[in-house]
Amino acid sequence: MTYHVHGVSASGNCYKVRLALEQLNLPHVWHEVDMMNGATRTDEFRKLNPNGKVPVLVIDEKTTLAESDAILCYLAEGTPLLPDDRLERAQALQWMFFEQYSHEPNVAVARFILQFLKQPGDPRLPDRIAGSYRALDVMEQHLATRTYFVGERYTVADIALYAYTHVAHEANVDLSRYPAIRAWIERVRSQPRHVEMPGVDQ
Amino acid sequence: MTYHVHGVSASGNCYKVRLALEQLNLPHVWHEVDMMNGATRTDEFRKLNPNGKVPVLVIDEKTTLAESDAILCYLAEGTPLLPDDRLERAQALQWMFFEQYSHEPNVAVARFILQFLKQPGDPRLPDRIAGSYRALDVMEQHLATRTYFVGERYTVADIALYAYTHVAHEANVDLSRYPAIRAWIERVRSQPRHVEMPGVDQ
Repeated sequence: MTYHVHGVSASGNCYKVRLALEQLNLPHVWHEVDMMNGATRTDEFRKLNPNGKVPVLVIDEKTTLAESDAILCYLAEGTPLLPDDRLERAQALQWMFFEQYSHEPNVAVARFILQFLKQPGDPRLPDRIAGSYRALDVMEQHLATRTYFVGERYTVADIALYAYTHVAHEANVDLSRYPAIRAWIERVRSQPRHVEMPGVDQ
Repeated sequence: MTYHVHGVSASGNCYKVRLALEQLNLPHVWHEVDMMNGATRTDEFRKLNPNGKVPVLVIDEKTTLAESDAILCYLAEGTPLLPDDRLERAQALQWMFFEQYSHEPNVAVARFILQFLKQPGDPRLPDRIAGSYRALDVMEQHLATRTYFVGERYTVADIALYAYTHVAHEANVDLSRYPAIRAWIERVRSQPRHVEMPGVDQ
């Protein structure tokens, strides 16, 4: 079967799905969504995801799946990317919920304001950048004694957190104070079949 | 074994854990956290969860788990509350990520401002309430033709979304325009071993 993905190439949430599909060697067709011109707010798009957000995975004609980290878990089920052990699976989910609640709303939103909206004077920016550092502090502490987030091997938790962390500089967030995170980024990049995220203006 | 939970009784995120523990009939001890007086920001608490948030599930002396929806999945593994089917499991996760990204930051934060901080003039409130209605619109559309969020039966997705939806009025959010949500709330309440969430000032 061939999956269809509706996404924005330079969105970290969408990139997670692309990276997992590539690393799991799953055939797929990418449908680029013109988010900046309102394409996620059309009736047609809301049939794919009533919440009006990318990415969306189309599994078959009747079945779509939204929320990047849920899509990761679906694609990785039964593969080494998703732990089989009950506790490790829950720990992977813990980091994915951390990503969506404490990391993405800071790093990704600051990056969106700067790189997509191109509004460096936006009054929301200082809070988002401060929140980014709080999330990175938690990651740095965890990675100081570990190679990956869960079970000492590369999983969906790493994919989820890599997506926006490796472009934190595009959110005016400085990774130089985070040696463990920078070493982990290189380990993620060295994984088989790794692909990079396209730049915002490509 | 006996689980230990560190939580705030009137927090919806913490209530999810209590409800699952009660419905799964799992022995547990509840440790009330004095969040409003800074207890989640102490070094002692950060040993339980470096991210400084409740709830935390203590599984054994060396093992803690944070993030309410990850805890739900851990507790429900192997029970009817967590779908076994690959697609249904991913759909449950989709709704739980929706809850943490599009619902909780609106409904729960508006409720926190009103009921915990008691600041009805807070300038963040109108945006949070508007976001609450957007999330409830998505839920209403889904529930209009369904009894529960996933697989036509009660799962962790319902627990996750019930926690703050059933107290939406405490966030100045009016459920009267949402008949499908109100009927679903009654179905959730009628589940075996249901327990209510304690009020904020109890």
